[in-house]
Amino acid sequence: MLELRLVQGSLLKKVLESIKDLVNDANFDCSATGFSLQAMDSSHVALVALLLRSEGFEHYRCDRNISMGMNLGNMSKMLKCAGNDDIITIKADDGSDTVTFMFESPTQDKIADFEMKLMDIDSEHLGIPEAEYHAIVRMPSTEFARICKDLSSIGDSVVISVTKEGVKFSTRGDIGTANIVCRQNTTVDKACSCHIHLPEEATVIEMNEPVTLTFALRYMNSFTKATPLSNTVTISLSSDLPVVVEYKIAEMGYVRFYLAPKIEEDGEEEDKPKPLTD
Amino acid sequence: MLELRLVQGSLLKKVLESIKDLVNDANFDCSATGFSLQAMDSSHVALVALLLRSEGFEHYRCDRNISMGMNLGNMSKMLKCAGNDDIITIKADDGSDTVTFMFESPTQDKIADFEMKLMDIDSEHLGIPEAEYHAIVRMPSTEFARICKDLSSIGDSVVISVTKEGVKFSTRGDIGTANIVCRQNTTVDKACSCHIHLPEEATVIEMNEPVTLTFALRYMNSFTKATPLSNTVTISLSSDLPVVVEYKIAEMGYVRFYLAPKIEEDGEEEDKPKPLTD
Amino acid sequence: MLELRLVQGSLLKKVLESIKDLVNDANFDCSATGFSLQAMDSSHVALVALLLRSEGFEHYRCDRNISMGMNLGNMSKMLKCAGNDDIITIKADDGSDTVTFMFESPTQDKIADFEMKLMDIDSEHLGIPEAEYHAIVRMPSTEFARICKDLSSIGDSVVISVTKEGVKFSTRGDIGTANIVCRQNTTVDKACSCHIHLPEEATVIEMNEPVTLTFALRYMNSFTKATPLSNTVTISLSSDLPVVVEYKIAEMGYVRFYLAPKIEEDGEEEDKPKPLTD
Repeated sequence: MLELRLVQGSLLKKVLESIKDLVNDANFDCSATGFSLQAMDSSHVALVALLLRSEGFEHYRCDRNISMGMNLGNMSKMLKCAGNDDIITIKADDGSDTVTFMFESPTQDKIADFEMKLMDIDSEHLGIPEAEYHAIVRMPSTEFARICKDLSSIGDSVVISVTKEGVKFSTRGDIGTANIVCRQNTTVDKACSCHIHLPEEATVIEMNEPVTLTFALRYMNSFTKATPLSNTVTISLSSDLPVVVEYKIAEMGYVRFYLAPKIEEDGEEEDKPKPLTD
Repeated sequence: MLELRLVQGSLLKKVLESIKDLVNDANFDCSATGFSLQAMDSSHVALVALLLRSEGFEHYRCDRNISMGMNLGNMSKMLKCAGNDDIITIKADDGSDTVTFMFESPTQDKIADFEMKLMDIDSEHLGIPEAEYHAIVRMPSTEFARICKDLSSIGDSVVISVTKEGVKFSTRGDIGTANIVCRQNTTVDKACSCHIHLPEEATVIEMNEPVTLTFALRYMNSFTKATPLSNTVTISLSSDLPVVVEYKIAEMGYVRFYLAPKIEEDGEEEDKPKPLTD
Repeated sequence: MLELRLVQGSLLKKVLESIKDLVNDANFDCSATGFSLQAMDSSHVALVALLLRSEGFEHYRCDRNISMGMNLGNMSKMLKCAGNDDIITIKADDGSDTVTFMFESPTQDKIADFEMKLMDIDSEHLGIPEAEYHAIVRMPSTEFARICKDLSSIGDSVVISVTKEGVKFSTRGDIGTANIVCRQNTTVDKACSCHIHLPEEATVIEMNEPVTLTFALRYMNSFTKATPLSNTVTISLSSDLPVVVEYKIAEMGYVRFYLAPKIEEDGEEEDKPKPLTD
């Protein structure tokens, strides 16, 4: 028996919108600690990891670990039928081949039940090791989304370079080149170095060593569909690791996107980014 | 000589938007009592009835009964050229084969005349008898529109079931099933049972006996284009009659849509709803 | 060395949006007095003239006269990457085959450089003589845009007739005819006949003799893309001259569109407007 009641149902709607274009089918894993998902995109280049911790739900009952295969497009169609102020409850009976999404309007005058068939999906769960990153950039999520969108009108790849002064996003295309530099904001209160106290509109850089990496803009743009989930985005970069683009979900967890850098050989860029798995 | 002056011209714009996708060509009937229309949709499945009473016009002159055949698409193109605050006057000379729509801006600085050719349209006027309905549901028009739109993303038909507790809208499709229940609001002032005093956001059910009927969502969605005309919609249901979906036009009349229920035979739904006429 | 710094960068964005659909490639001419452009549309029917005077820039350095050929579509792609509050600087080194657009956010936290390749474009600079016009109409730019759009839903050409009482815009198409009359506003302060003091929402007509001319609505609609540049538009008409549709750019200059009238022969309209050059 599974019953997860989320008062702020719009969060689940936003989560689905952020990942449904990247991943077609995926297993949602439910355990006592939370509701999570890990899935590769269909071209096996990017990885999505979602966590909604059990503490973030008003009511959370999960009698045994369960993995539910869902078509994210169909799930999104159903969640779009929930009002933005609705309470959403996810329900599944033990052994059932369906999941039910229940939407309650704030006044309780309107109650909807949407029942969706579950799927059997083969998936391998990748272990993602904790890693040390050369540089971690925290910036307003709308700023990052705007930069990815703007650069896409000029080129296909973005070169991200981090130095102590700031982070530079560059691209090159048939019509010319573009460089956008976001400086580390200097208006930060010096008395407190705790990042949690920094204003959300600040760009903050934690850097061990400078790093320059190239990524496919198509994927970066896809990741920015998570922008409505959080005011800030955190980009973690190392020269030998996939980049992590993380959107925190307040009090509940996160959506993280992993993407391997493009590798330039003999000055020529590869056509495709390196897959995360072989 | 016909001259009908409507200060709130946006009403006529909204009326056209609500019916132009359902009906291509139709006769507008003008008499001393009002400006009206009755027309089948092109597949002869749904019927539209419009009434704008003469009292609702600032000036209403109609010397003799006249029936004017118009292409609703072309009429809509012309009415879209009226500003939302414009006064609209409909004019026709006796025996003329054109109608003129005059738009006056509130400041009288801009006056537009649009002249449209009339058409000869064969039409039979159906007598719609007054009927007793098993159940009459009054609900917010935006709520009804939202429900029809949401269910369309899952299935093709809607089953409407009315009981004393509320009204249930259900559908079934390839990806699953959906049920939406709107409860009769209980926060109504008990001291006054007069429906006119009920708040517009209330769902109110008058029921003689429970009724369950199935309709094509395509038509229901088309009817909801009349939503801007009224805050509430009234749905009248009987097992042996077409449903009536009515949008009242304040102080003037109504737009009513009639649709025959789908009939299930041997558990199989018919592909097409039963036509209203043979 | 060229360096033009425009604090109100959104102006340049709006200028590009107003002309990029009419003209594909054009030379921007830069001299000590200002930044200007003159170009025919691709069908050689309409002419665009732009002037941004040097006084309107915060910083204006232009060491020698220079003509820079640009693809307006590509330039527009780059300018769309500037925020609406950004300061835009146009930079070019002597003899360089590129131009750089620099965008600075108001807080200086984000600096972008977009570099675009220049093109060699053959262009003849038409001398446009100062002329006396039979009638000059000044009206709200949104009103003019609305009229051109509305008439386009009925016909292909607009007949503009100016009399002392007002200006009439007419068209005719398959579905009927339309006439829109804008009266000269009479609420103008009689004590001061100076047009600069007239309210922007006024329609004002200066007329030496009545004039009636026919134009292709397709071009008029294209000109109205300049509407965001100015609250008012000035239309100058003479029976033997191209019409001038002018949008003033506050404190800086203007965008002017020139279009030859259609000539009716034997009561039949020509299919195409007369080209401005042979």
